[in-house]
Amino acid sequence: MSAVDFDELRSRFRLPDGKVYLDGNSLGALPTHTAERLYEVISTEWAVDLVSGWNTKQWIDLPLSVGDQIAPIIGATMGNVVCCDSLSINLFKALTACLEVNKGRSLITLEDGQFPSDSYIADGLSQLLGSDRCRTQAIDVTALTPGILSESAVLLLSHVDYKSGSLRDMHTITSMAQSVGCLVIWDLAHSAGAIDIDLEASHVDFAVGCTYKFLNGGPGAPGFLYVAKRHQEVQNALPGWMGHARLFDFEAKYEAAPGIKRFLTGTQSVLALSAVSASLSVFEGLAMQDVRAQSLALTRHFITLWKQSSVLQSHTTIVTPIDEAQRGSQVSLALEDAFPVSQALIADGVIVDFREPNILRFGFSPLYNTLSDAEQAIASFESVLASERYRLPQFQIRSTVT
Amino acid sequence: MSAVDFDELRSRFRLPDGKVYLDGNSLGALPTHTAERLYEVISTEWAVDLVSGWNTKQWIDLPLSVGDQIAPIIGATMGNVVCCDSLSINLFKALTACLEVNKGRSLITLEDGQFPSDSYIADGLSQLLGSDRCRTQAIDVTALTPGILSESAVLLLSHVDYKSGSLRDMHTITSMAQSVGCLVIWDLAHSAGAIDIDLEASHVDFAVGCTYKFLNGGPGAPGFLYVAKRHQEVQNALPGWMGHARLFDFEAKYEAAPGIKRFLTGTQSVLALSAVSASLSVFEGLAMQDVRAQSLALTRHFITLWKQSSVLQSHTTIVTPIDEAQRGSQVSLALEDAFPVSQALIADGVIVDFREPNILRFGFSPLYNTLSDAEQAIASFESVLASERYRLPQFQIRSTVT
Repeated sequence: MSAVDFDELRSRFRLPDGKVYLDGNSLGALPTHTAERLYEVISTEWAVDLVSGWNTKQWIDLPLSVGDQIAPIIGATMGNVVCCDSLSINLFKALTACLEVNKGRSLITLEDGQFPSDSYIADGLSQLLGSDRCRTQAIDVTALTPGILSESAVLLLSHVDYKSGSLRDMHTITSMAQSVGCLVIWDLAHSAGAIDIDLEASHVDFAVGCTYKFLNGGPGAPGFLYVAKRHQEVQNALPGWMGHARLFDFEAKYEAAPGIKRFLTGTQSVLALSAVSASLSVFEGLAMQDVRAQSLALTRHFITLWKQSSVLQSHTTIVTPIDEAQRGSQVSLALEDAFPVSQALIADGVIVDFREPNILRFGFSPLYNTLSDAEQAIASFESVLASERYRLPQFQIRSTVT
Repeated sequence: MSAVDFDELRSRFRLPDGKVYLDGNSLGALPTHTAERLYEVISTEWAVDLVSGWNTKQWIDLPLSVGDQIAPIIGATMGNVVCCDSLSINLFKALTACLEVNKGRSLITLEDGQFPSDSYIADGLSQLLGSDRCRTQAIDVTALTPGILSESAVLLLSHVDYKSGSLRDMHTITSMAQSVGCLVIWDLAHSAGAIDIDLEASHVDFAVGCTYKFLNGGPGAPGFLYVAKRHQEVQNALPGWMGHARLFDFEAKYEAAPGIKRFLTGTQSVLALSAVSASLSVFEGLAMQDVRAQSLALTRHFITLWKQSSVLQSHTTIVTPIDEAQRGSQVSLALEDAFPVSQALIADGVIVDFREPNILRFGFSPLYNTLSDAEQAIASFESVLASERYRLPQFQIRSTVT
C-alpha cells in the first residue's frame, strides 16, 4: 500500500461525468485549480498588470521556473530543464547541439517506428544540412548493439513507444551508446509524469518531452528540453532574444546566456506556461516511485482482467509488454476492426484511442485513473465485442481527425 | 470623421483604472470577451471534451483558422497565413525557404539596428549552414539601392522599426528588391493591427509577426507567418506532424500538406490560439484604413501637443518621423535620463516604456487609446520634467527586466 492518497489526488481533477477517461496519454485532464489559476492570470495579471507583468509577475522567468518544476519529475537537476516551444522545435535544438558536440560524426540513429514527428525533424535537418553533415538511419531498437552505434553522433529514442507502450531501459541503452562515443536524446513524451525517470543517474545527454499528456498542462501545451550540465556551453541553433545574456539591452550581437537559458528562442505564451505551472503543482511532494507503482497497479489490473476474459482473449492480442519493467503507462491491444471498436467504446463512455493500423490504446494516468476505471473499460470492451455493436454503420465513419 | 465608433471599440477592452496605457505596442490590452471565451475553452472544452476537442471543437484547425482571421488585417489572401510558434521560429522557416527558392544566392541582407532577435536568427542560420551557404550583411535602410541587393537572396526588414517607430514603404522597397532578384521578408511585429498593410498588392514574398502587440492576443501569444501562394511549394526546414498531408496516419515518411499548412511543425497551444482568435474578432468588419486613420489622429495629436510645450521642446528630441507616411503607431522621443523619466511617468499612471540607450516610447493602440490619453500623457510628461521628480532615487533603480 502506497503512502500516497490517490483518491485525494483524483479529487483535484475535473473529470467528465459518467465517463472512463483512458486517454490521458494523449491529453491529460484539467486540475480544478489550474482553471482557477488561469482565471487569475487572465483577469488580474494580463488585464491589470499588463506589460509590467513580465517583471512583477515573473512571466519572463516562466520557461525556467516551469522547467524547474518539471526537473524533479524526470530526475533532472534544477537548472537543466526549460519549458518552451513545441517538442519538435526542442528536438531540433537537441539534434543540432549533438552534431556540434560530436563534431566528427554526422549520423543520427533512430528507431523503426519512431514517433513520426521526431523522424520528420531529423530528416528535415539532414535535408537542410546536406547528407555529408547529417544523415539518419533507422534501426530495430530490440537489436541494438554498440557496433550499430559506433559511427553515430546521436541516438534518438522514445522512452515509451507511443504505439506499443514499450518502456525502454534508459540506463543500459544510454551507457551502451556512450561507450562507443554516441550521444543520446530521449523523447519523454509518453513517460514524463507516469514513470520514475532519473536523467542524471542515467547520465543522459539531452531529453525532450511534452506537457500535455501525463503532466496535464492543457491541449497543445509547450514542450520541454533537458540539457545535461556538461553540454550547456553548446550554441543554440535557434538563438533568440529570450536566450540572450542581457535580453532587455537589445544588443545587435548575440551573446548566449549562461546555462540552460540559452536554449530559449522567442517569446513564450504566458497563458500556456501558467497552465503548465499550475498543473505541475499536483506533483509537488509526490515521489515518482509511488506514481510509477500506481501506474503499474492500474495496467496490471487491466491485464489481469483481460487474461480472464475469453471474449477479449479470442479477439485481441496484447502488444504492450507483460514484463512490467518494459511497460509504460498504457496497454495497447491489436485487433481486427480496431477503429470501429474504439468508436463503440467511446460511445459507451470509455474514452480510448485508435492508432493505425489496428491498435487500441488504453492509457492510465496514475494521478486520476482508478482500478474501477480498468474494470469498467474491460466490461464495456467485452460487451462491445460480444454484442458486435461496433459493426453499426455510425462506428465506421472516419473523420479526418481521430 | 470616420464611420467607426472608436468609443464603442474601446469599451470592449478591460483597461486598468486610472491609468493611461501607452504600451500596447509591447503588450495589447485584454478584450473583455477574450476572458470569457478563455473561461469557456478551459471549463467546457478542455475539461469536458478532453481529447475529442481536437476534432469536435476544431482545435486542430486553429493555426489555419486564426491565420485566416489575421489575413484581412495584413492584406493577405485567406490560406496564406498560419498562426503558430514564435515570430523567431517562423522567421527561421521563412529564411530557410528564401535560401531554397533563391538557390544561387547565399546572402541575407538586414538593416543596422534590426530588431535584435531577428538578427540572432539570421546569424544563427549562417553559423548552422556555414558562410558559403548563408551569410548576413547589415545595411543602412535609408540608403537602400538595387545595387546593394544585387547579390542578396533575401532582404529582411521591419515594417515599423521598434525603436524609432519609422514606417517603411513596403511597396517600393519590395519592388526594388525583387527587380534585382532578391526576395523580401517583412517583420510586421510593430505594424500588424495598427497600419493598413496590403501584402498581396505589394507582392511580398514572406512576412512574420506577433499577435501580442496591436492584435491583443495576450502575453507571449504565438507568432504568424505569411507565405505568398507562389512559394507554398517550398519545403519547411522544420517539418513536423502538424504540417503532414495526413497527420493522424502517423506515417514514417514525411509528406508535406499542400499549401500554407506545411509550414506548421509541432502541436500548438489551444489556450494561446483561442485567446488570439477571440481577440482578433474585435477587428471583424473594421477597414484597416480607418484603423490607420485613428492611429495617425492619435500620434498627430500627441506630436502637436509636444510641439506646443516649451518644457518638452527643450528636453526632448523627436525620433519618430514627422512625415505621417513614414510614421508607425508610436511616438519615440530621445532625452537624457530617459530611464528614470519612464519610471516617473509609470508612477504617475502613464504606462510607457524605455529602450536603450535614451528612448521613451509612447505607443498608441488605435482600438482603445484616445485623444485624451495623448493629452494626459503630455501633461504628466511636462510635470515629471518640470518638477524634476524623476531624479528621486526610486526612479533610478533598474531591475533586470524593464
